Amino acid sequence: MENQRPLILVSNDDGIVAKGISELIKFLRPLGEVVVMAPDKARSGTGCALTTGEPIHYSLVRKDVGLTVYKCSGNPADCVKLAFETVLDRKPDLVVGGINHGDNSATNVHYSGTMGVVIEGCLKGVPSIGFSLCSHEPDANFTAAGPYVRDIARLVLEKGLPALTCLNVNFPDTQELKGVKICRQTKGQWTSEWENFAHRGDNHYYWLTGSFVDEDADQEDTDHWALANGYVAITPTTVDVTAYGMIDELKTWF
Amino acid sequence: MENQRPLILVSNDDGIVAKGISELIKFLRPLGEVVVMAPDKARSGTGCALTTGEPIHYSLVRKDVGLTVYKCSGNPADCVKLAFETVLDRKPDLVVGGINHGDNSATNVHYSGTMGVVIEGCLKGVPSIGFSLCSHEPDANFTAAGPYVRDIARLVLEKGLPALTCLNVNFPDTQELKGVKICRQTKGQWTSEWENFAHRGDNHYYWLTGSFVDEDADQEDTDHWALANGYVAITPTTVDVTAYGMIDELKTWF
Repeated sequence: MENQRPLILVSNDDGIVAKGISELIKFLRPLGEVVVMAPDKARSGTGCALTTGEPIHYSLVRKDVGLTVYKCSGNPADCVKLAFETVLDRKPDLVVGGINHGDNSATNVHYSGTMGVVIEGCLKGVPSIGFSLCSHEPDANFTAAGPYVRDIARLVLEKGLPALTCLNVNFPDTQELKGVKICRQTKGQWTSEWENFAHRGDNHYYWLTGSFVDEDADQEDTDHWALANGYVAITPTTVDVTAYGMIDELKTWF
Repeated sequence: MENQRPLILVSNDDGIVAKGISELIKFLRPLGEVVVMAPDKARSGTGCALTTGEPIHYSLVRKDVGLTVYKCSGNPADCVKLAFETVLDRKPDLVVGGINHGDNSATNVHYSGTMGVVIEGCLKGVPSIGFSLCSHEPDANFTAAGPYVRDIARLVLEKGLPALTCLNVNFPDTQELKGVKICRQTKGQWTSEWENFAHRGDNHYYWLTGSFVDEDADQEDTDHWALANGYVAITPTTVDVTAYGMIDELKTWF
């Protein structure tokens, strides 16, 4: 079937109605056949979480030439797993997550549902890319990101990605992008992560918040540096999390 | 405070009432002061997922000499984050997740709430270990694992772990353990992941299931090989997921 157009599976974690996924679909449609399986509501911060304690459900939202859209009651990683076994008639050529409303650089990769989509695609052996914009605004402006999204997706379709490797792409919130930087994950820690409040006399309620303390300040090879300086940050990301450098040392312990 | 006993934070993803966490607490108590902050119900397969859309709540369950137990309405990673800012009076010396009822070897590390505990501890700069047993039985037998849990925890307290590195320890479901193997993460894929059923005439309901296809069969350095051959599998695991090997290649793309 050499004349088939590339098959592109799209999902996200902000949910099917988010502007970011609509924009992503618009940017990707010229590149191939797009199938969307996205959460029916926001599932931010769910990482690679799966739904194990209850069944999930999907349904068709819209079918157009070259575009089919489904919504699903599961998490982002569930959406990818379910699409592979239900709505896709062949293995996709590309899995894309996003465009996320919010930064998924640095250690956020571990919590990101957008990257949950991408890690799942990568684990299934398909070249996979996550796109995120450093703005949580529902009406964020994705215009400048568009040509980069399309170029990066086209390059990955042409060249592929190494086994067990995916891309985490973050855009600064500006319309004047300076180009692309290839980065490593910034080291750092979230601090002051909880906002405490009382409810009906019980003061043990906490809402997640926090600020990120960068431990790699001024390191020009990090994704944070790229974003702070107006560049598109592309961080190649592995799903083989073995700490190979520690294997020999650890063998001496036993 | 050189005479303080080590402070050990414990959590899991099977929830506070699981046998595995009770056994873990029992094994660890001789090593130091144990504080438990565990989910109030099972949160299996939640990976590093955070609770972002609603507040979480914690409460004291039990206080004894050298042991304080709290339950929390959040996910495993929430539990660790919350404990650091609420119930711990100093930075812990060790964060431990488990003992999980079920295998967290191979690519399961990405979905594991047990490893969500461990990754969170590691991101906070504390030596962290996850323990899992290859049995989902509520009444699984953790007896043989006990001495290994204690020895591994003691070694990590003594020697520490490199920055950004934690341990993923899995036990085969046997009482005749052959010793320890230091491993890498087995490559492979989950397949046949969904069980379809109909509900009220709608046949788009799916429940997660699946079988793992090992792509590293007979590779003696993998965690699957160790488990299949009766060894305790210790896989050193990194939270820096940058695919360093692809950076130079990727730079040639742009």
